[in-house]
Amino acid sequence: MSSDFDEIDSIINARSLAIVGASGVPMKFGSYYTSSQLQMDFAGSLYLINPNEKEIMGRSVYPDLKSLPEVPDLVALTIPAHTSLEVMRECADIGVKGVIMIASGFREVGGEGEALQEEALEIARAGGFRIVGPNCFGIYNPRNRLTVIPGYDFSKTPGRIAFISQSGGYSVHVARQAQSLGLGFSAVVSYGNAADLNEADFLLYFAQDRQTGVIAGYLEGVMDGESFSKALSEASAVKPVVLWKVGRSESSKRAVASHTGSMAGSSEIWDGLVRQHGVIPASGVDEVVDILLALERLGVRPGRRILMASGGGGIGTYAGDVAEAEGLTIPPLEEGCLKRMQAILNRAGAVAGNPLDIGAPLIPMPEFEGAIREAAMNPSTDILIFDLAINFGYDLAGEAGLDLVSDILIRTRRESEKPLVVVLYSRSFDPDKLDLEGVLRRMRWKLLGEGIPVYPSVPRAMRAIARVNIQATASLSA
Amino acid sequence: MSSDFDEIDSIINARSLAIVGASGVPMKFGSYYTSSQLQMDFAGSLYLINPNEKEIMGRSVYPDLKSLPEVPDLVALTIPAHTSLEVMRECADIGVKGVIMIASGFREVGGEGEALQEEALEIARAGGFRIVGPNCFGIYNPRNRLTVIPGYDFSKTPGRIAFISQSGGYSVHVARQAQSLGLGFSAVVSYGNAADLNEADFLLYFAQDRQTGVIAGYLEGVMDGESFSKALSEASAVKPVVLWKVGRSESSKRAVASHTGSMAGSSEIWDGLVRQHGVIPASGVDEVVDILLALERLGVRPGRRILMASGGGGIGTYAGDVAEAEGLTIPPLEEGCLKRMQAILNRAGAVAGNPLDIGAPLIPMPEFEGAIREAAMNPSTDILIFDLAINFGYDLAGEAGLDLVSDILIRTRRESEKPLVVVLYSRSFDPDKLDLEGVLRRMRWKLLGEGIPVYPSVPRAMRAIARVNIQATASLSA
Repeated sequence: MSSDFDEIDSIINARSLAIVGASGVPMKFGSYYTSSQLQMDFAGSLYLINPNEKEIMGRSVYPDLKSLPEVPDLVALTIPAHTSLEVMRECADIGVKGVIMIASGFREVGGEGEALQEEALEIARAGGFRIVGPNCFGIYNPRNRLTVIPGYDFSKTPGRIAFISQSGGYSVHVARQAQSLGLGFSAVVSYGNAADLNEADFLLYFAQDRQTGVIAGYLEGVMDGESFSKALSEASAVKPVVLWKVGRSESSKRAVASHTGSMAGSSEIWDGLVRQHGVIPASGVDEVVDILLALERLGVRPGRRILMASGGGGIGTYAGDVAEAEGLTIPPLEEGCLKRMQAILNRAGAVAGNPLDIGAPLIPMPEFEGAIREAAMNPSTDILIFDLAINFGYDLAGEAGLDLVSDILIRTRRESEKPLVVVLYSRSFDPDKLDLEGVLRRMRWKLLGEGIPVYPSVPRAMRAIARVNIQATASLSA
Repeated sequence: MSSDFDEIDSIINARSLAIVGASGVPMKFGSYYTSSQLQMDFAGSLYLINPNEKEIMGRSVYPDLKSLPEVPDLVALTIPAHTSLEVMRECADIGVKGVIMIASGFREVGGEGEALQEEALEIARAGGFRIVGPNCFGIYNPRNRLTVIPGYDFSKTPGRIAFISQSGGYSVHVARQAQSLGLGFSAVVSYGNAADLNEADFLLYFAQDRQTGVIAGYLEGVMDGESFSKALSEASAVKPVVLWKVGRSESSKRAVASHTGSMAGSSEIWDGLVRQHGVIPASGVDEVVDILLALERLGVRPGRRILMASGGGGIGTYAGDVAEAEGLTIPPLEEGCLKRMQAILNRAGAVAGNPLDIGAPLIPMPEFEGAIREAAMNPSTDILIFDLAINFGYDLAGEAGLDLVSDILIRTRRESEKPLVVVLYSRSFDPDKLDLEGVLRRMRWKLLGEGIPVYPSVPRAMRAIARVNIQATASLSA
């Protein structure tokens, strides 16, 4: 392991943390961060620092870093840009390992801010510590229950996904949505302006980090093309890498400059890198989360041949167009499978084949189970997608009806070697129909708990499947 | 008005309805339809017909059509294909105006089914009545509270949207989702195989229907290219037409044939028709509903110049790329507006401009209101989109915080002449966090009630805006 790895590791897996600017005053960033970290219950030693307060949220407060009983591994600065450098010098004096600079007002505002950022970097280099930020939300790590990020409700259970992000807002958004679908993170890092540690450093770190199985990122710019390409090559050779890169349009390039002071760079060069290293491209929070769900539940390259099943002829018909647009296929059933399925579904309204229309909502459950099992076993397809059209089963038998359906889907998944993907959506957004939303969420949770990914629409399911069918890179294909 | 109009009108606005095959036996289509129509409380005379039952769900039952005290305008057949023709002959004998044939087992199965469908059509022609279907879900019309469709929970309040669909499932799915966003229908027609009345007939009917302001459709095939093109030309000259056409891919063409026995036709010809007549193309339920929401709240051609506002730099940055991909722009602010906004947002974390980053979540509300009002008034943009990033306001002040935010948005909308579009999403799908889902649904409902369209993501909002900026056709541009 390189010394870079150890330096980043002592930040991410810090055993002691000081929050400078901790506060009990509402509407201050310091208070937001303090309450978040207190709710997460940091596994190491947590020190709150504020020269003007004696006690915050029931914890005693230190006036400055020098008064602490130990040198903290990590210092989080939740103080304004212009007061940061003085504390950075203290950090250098006592010998911390890393500093997270939350405040904005640095390179992204140009002029004086740019000079401040340069000076901060010089202090860190001379003092022998590393910087995350500035202009960021910081780090979440369930292993040491670190959450220098507004993630008070984040999970305390570690998972396999590392998410790095130049945007603080998206770091929180992706983490929250993914966690509510049962996905877990090894860490989330919002690194903003990347004055010191940047996307290449974090890619290399998470490529080596044993807890991490998948790396995802939101990038606005790349600090150094050559080191980034090298890091990408190394990371994508050992783990799937999902990247959401913004800055293609003119207005987006302008926004990148004023947001994190980055250079968005050329889309052509970016697209080349993505192809060369087998990176999975993503666009938007929904797509990132959809792809992470597919990677965690289906793995890479689950195959492109879909068996599309549902209760309704329209769904399968539409799905064919979506599949083709995404580079997937819905091939005819293998002949033996077709004959067995025709024998099971021998009645008006049902159509044996691929797409398969089971003729819901009035199909008897044993017939449904027989047909869906045949579909799961069909040799000419890789993945079974079942669309729970308008919450099939619910109108006739309520939550118990949906439970019967999900039990059949779960049994089918257990008995088949092939992945099953379920499409399930809210049929109403009415505030007065929260009871039905609860029923659907419990059903989704039950399926997710059995390793069955659940998507809100056929296009979103198919796009995620298409994206994780990345071309093999040397190590991943081994 | 043509005689076709009167014939279709006497079906859709029927004053008397007989359900042949009405049933109280669960898991039968007849029972599904009977209970649906009883819950909707038909405004005219409703007759239940079944020779083997005396009473169904508390209503008396007639043994056959000839025993009725009057000739019903409309007869709905919820009986199997092979027993349909006998009843069709009765319909001809007594002189009804229309028959809805629900059952499948006709042209879409080929052979004998095809012959059955031909014979049904001959009986109707000889008897002087029209057919909807077969192999369909039927009709919903809130004006006479007709719901020969499994739409027991559909609204009883008429709206302006007509939706015609070859798929029964999608007719119900689109109607339910749209209604839960406050959109209303003049009628929904699922017409399946289109043995007699087809897409061209319904297009012409709804073009003339005064209650209808927008026509949308899900099509698998077109019965007669020439009459369809003529109908499309006539309809799109007077009302916006949104069409979701499937059958581009090989598997979809196969599915079209086995679903409604249609011919999907050539994608090139279709794309030409769409361009020629200024049709708004759509793909999938979500997109259809998104476009209908935009048409109803923004109208056609609201403009393509977006002011993108949010609390967070990432959102505006990403939005630039989405806008460009959809043919929208995020132009710089007009100079006076920029200066006023800079004066209001004079602090770290906020970026005055377009995109606009208000620096949430810690912005004071008066500052937010000042900035958002400037944004709404900016002369160089047509539409303001505000993304309520991760439910801005909620963490700091709960539902009351979100209420403050939505009150400001509503005041801004009322004071500005320009449309405001809000992006609001669930940040968690956790079954245990239904309370937050309730808060968000109430907020969405409140905004929708003020004429502010609410979308679940920036890409979905922008795509809908892009689609309703259709090119002018002769009459619409007048």
